[in-house]
Amino acid sequence: MQEELVGMARWAMATGQRIVVLFEGRDTAGKGGAIKAVRERLNPRQCRIVALSKPSEEERSQWYFQRYAKHLPSAGEIVLFDRSWYNRAGVERVMGFADEGQVEDFLRQAPAFEKLLVDDGILLFKYWLGTDQEKQEERLRERLEDPLKRWKLSPIDLAARSKYDKYTRAREDMLAATHTEWAPWTLVDFNDQKRGRLTLVRNLLDRLPDTRVEPPSIDFPELGHEPVEETYGFLEPIADYPVD
Amino acid sequence: MQEELVGMARWAMATGQRIVVLFEGRDTAGKGGAIKAVRERLNPRQCRIVALSKPSEEERSQWYFQRYAKHLPSAGEIVLFDRSWYNRAGVERVMGFADEGQVEDFLRQAPAFEKLLVDDGILLFKYWLGTDQEKQEERLRERLEDPLKRWKLSPIDLAARSKYDKYTRAREDMLAATHTEWAPWTLVDFNDQKRGRLTLVRNLLDRLPDTRVEPPSIDFPELGHEPVEETYGFLEPIADYPVD
Amino acid sequence: MQEELVGMARWAMATGQRIVVLFEGRDTAGKGGAIKAVRERLNPRQCRIVALSKPSEEERSQWYFQRYAKHLPSAGEIVLFDRSWYNRAGVERVMGFADEGQVEDFLRQAPAFEKLLVDDGILLFKYWLGTDQEKQEERLRERLEDPLKRWKLSPIDLAARSKYDKYTRAREDMLAATHTEWAPWTLVDFNDQKRGRLTLVRNLLDRLPDTRVEPPSIDFPELGHEPVEETYGFLEPIADYPVD
Amino acid sequence: MQEELVGMARWAMATGQRIVVLFEGRDTAGKGGAIKAVRERLNPRQCRIVALSKPSEEERSQWYFQRYAKHLPSAGEIVLFDRSWYNRAGVERVMGFADEGQVEDFLRQAPAFEKLLVDDGILLFKYWLGTDQEKQEERLRERLEDPLKRWKLSPIDLAARSKYDKYTRAREDMLAATHTEWAPWTLVDFNDQKRGRLTLVRNLLDRLPDTRVEPPSIDFPELGHEPVEETYGFLEPIADYPVD
Repeated sequence: MQEELVGMARWAMATGQRIVVLFEGRDTAGKGGAIKAVRERLNPRQCRIVALSKPSEEERSQWYFQRYAKHLPSAGEIVLFDRSWYNRAGVERVMGFADEGQVEDFLRQAPAFEKLLVDDGILLFKYWLGTDQEKQEERLRERLEDPLKRWKLSPIDLAARSKYDKYTRAREDMLAATHTEWAPWTLVDFNDQKRGRLTLVRNLLDRLPDTRVEPPSIDFPELGHEPVEETYGFLEPIADYPVD
Repeated sequence: MQEELVGMARWAMATGQRIVVLFEGRDTAGKGGAIKAVRERLNPRQCRIVALSKPSEEERSQWYFQRYAKHLPSAGEIVLFDRSWYNRAGVERVMGFADEGQVEDFLRQAPAFEKLLVDDGILLFKYWLGTDQEKQEERLRERLEDPLKRWKLSPIDLAARSKYDKYTRAREDMLAATHTEWAPWTLVDFNDQKRGRLTLVRNLLDRLPDTRVEPPSIDFPELGHEPVEETYGFLEPIADYPVD
Repeated sequence: MQEELVGMARWAMATGQRIVVLFEGRDTAGKGGAIKAVRERLNPRQCRIVALSKPSEEERSQWYFQRYAKHLPSAGEIVLFDRSWYNRAGVERVMGFADEGQVEDFLRQAPAFEKLLVDDGILLFKYWLGTDQEKQEERLRERLEDPLKRWKLSPIDLAARSKYDKYTRAREDMLAATHTEWAPWTLVDFNDQKRGRLTLVRNLLDRLPDTRVEPPSIDFPELGHEPVEETYGFLEPIADYPVD
Repeated sequence: MQEELVGMARWAMATGQRIVVLFEGRDTAGKGGAIKAVRERLNPRQCRIVALSKPSEEERSQWYFQRYAKHLPSAGEIVLFDRSWYNRAGVERVMGFADEGQVEDFLRQAPAFEKLLVDDGILLFKYWLGTDQEKQEERLRERLEDPLKRWKLSPIDLAARSKYDKYTRAREDMLAATHTEWAPWTLVDFNDQKRGRLTLVRNLLDRLPDTRVEPPSIDFPELGHEPVEETYGFLEPIADYPVD
């Protein structure tokens, strides 16, 4: 599938397509890993991750979609949103950072905003990653104990533990309002994260048109001389790390 | 070392440090892999990669450092430059995209620009990754043959094959002009890429102050009820990818 | 009316209102002067003019509204668009820079885009400034002859002379498609530019809610000493311009 | 002189020059009016005013010059800074928003930053506008009383009344540190604002190279038919403002 992803990227570049993929879902479901799976082998100059921090006071006072809009792709680009404008319908709603009026406004406006993008020719994919609370608890505990994962554990994650049902209801409202013909949601079961990633990537690839664009044929002549060894003058490399 | 990197990131966040790491070097040396090694386990909201495409006509007419300056870090951020302002002293010079006057100007200005950043408190690290031409040829051929790596093979890479020595001379000039007390270069041998990555990361960690910041202690109470299973109403997850 | 404009700005600042005013119309109708009339006495930190140049190649490949969206106001700001997204329905259409498909798409999308802004609470005003061709010819000739106005005369202006009727038809289509309940157009006769400016500003003020916000009362005590004269040490002022 | 300014702008455009003019000085000296005098007759697409509000928390943590650098001109542009990076040496210092260490750092770094710009070919002009305290008091009182000028009266202006001497000393330190060969200061007496504006504009024009670029000759053929009168279909213009 990595090969197909690379082929898809080549197609996007050759045809000037613009691709946007939103990754939403339960905390700990595995958004980061899924994004990595898509991006792994692609050109970082072509495939960007957008992972916005919380808005500044100025941004909070602007048009809600403004700070997201500025990251939308140019011709040939693939933009992966690690969380997205749907924050408002999920974490902001459940944690009380947005009031019900704002959430209702958002749920009415998101389909209109997305329609504009899709009408403009942007290919938009929206994934929501689900997981049982048992798995979530397991993964939270792992984050607590594994020093490599500890940074993933935010106070909001912990506060969210007791709000699993609230998140479920918020998700249902979100789907009911924003699962549209032009920008449908795709739900993926991430109780098994590896399988989830395969399912998601397979689905993404299946929904793109047949993407075969031959790479340009390349002439690779002989060097015509012995390959040169690296030599240093002004400054030497530092000592190698002692692997034995 | 991943654990130390995570600790370093925690320290940067806690103390508001700003860290900039430049990755320069031979084509195929392994900049992408080295960046991945540093970033692998860090919070994508804290650690950004900057991989700029070629400048627009408007950018070309602006102050040379302007388009780089806008990506410099805020408090707590770690920014990894996948190629950097040193393009002008390397590929642009060797391939003739910049004339000698521009290169000389750049070589005189880069240390002044970097001094401003360092005086402002930014922690700046500059790595140059070296590799023998034999390895380079091997890796280019691999890119040619491996469909997953084919996109990495640009016409410039091929044109650069016959300019190995010119790159060497350009690097020497660059080091002579820009290896300063406040922003020294570090050369790392990437003939063995895995070892190179270990060497680079070890060096980076050793040059940062002792970074131990304890993660905040976290209270993780019992859930108090059976964990909830994911249930879907409005829309069902798609079928799992058939593994096995 | 300047006083009322200043009062309006104070109200916008005090209440965090965001105001957007679009200025469209015939070439030479007097958009620049109308903008100046609105802005004349306002704080340049609060009231911004957005006068975009032609899009870069990258921008041309992005979502059509993207480069405009990033200039939308924050709380308290007043943004005056000197030409706007309606370029596509006017000059781009008439001069053939956009094809009919793009124009149709635009005419369908603009109301949806504007609805999003208005639903978000932005106060949006759209003015179209009309003028007879006789006046237009007069003003073009003046631009040709007056060295101070010569820069206003673009090749496009001249090419547009013979397309007065085409512009009329384009305007009619634009009005039919984008004169909506939530974002109506206001047409103003600018055959007499001074009167046109008064008409426009009066209309704008009348459509804003009663905007009286008292300026904060300010205590202005005596200085308590003789006022100090400017004295210079390190460097002297240059000689005054000889007014006699 | 307006004609010469227009000629200068034409020259900048034709030759791709980039021009930056900083306006600093006493409160009430007349920066706004001086900027207006320069900009009055220029193309707003070519001549931009940069009047930054106070920095966001994120900006405050970035490289000090970062938020200014992003407004530097492209080829042909003229950028007028209504206050500038020198805020740190003036109001921030006097009002205690920056500590002495930050001010010293700034005074050492500003010449280095400006040298980078000038070496890159940017034409940089720095004006400081002076006025006696008697005039300042007069103008402050006018701002207090004139509703059109009331918004210009900030609490900082009032707090600054008793700090006239501190501002003088801050200016002297600033000049001593940043009046350089490559970016000299020009002081202009603005006790008489009209004369000050003439003096400043004359000085600016005198320091630019001989700027005569002929405007392209333009063919202005007869229309070939009676000029068309504006007619409206879908929507009528609103009633004219009753001027009698």
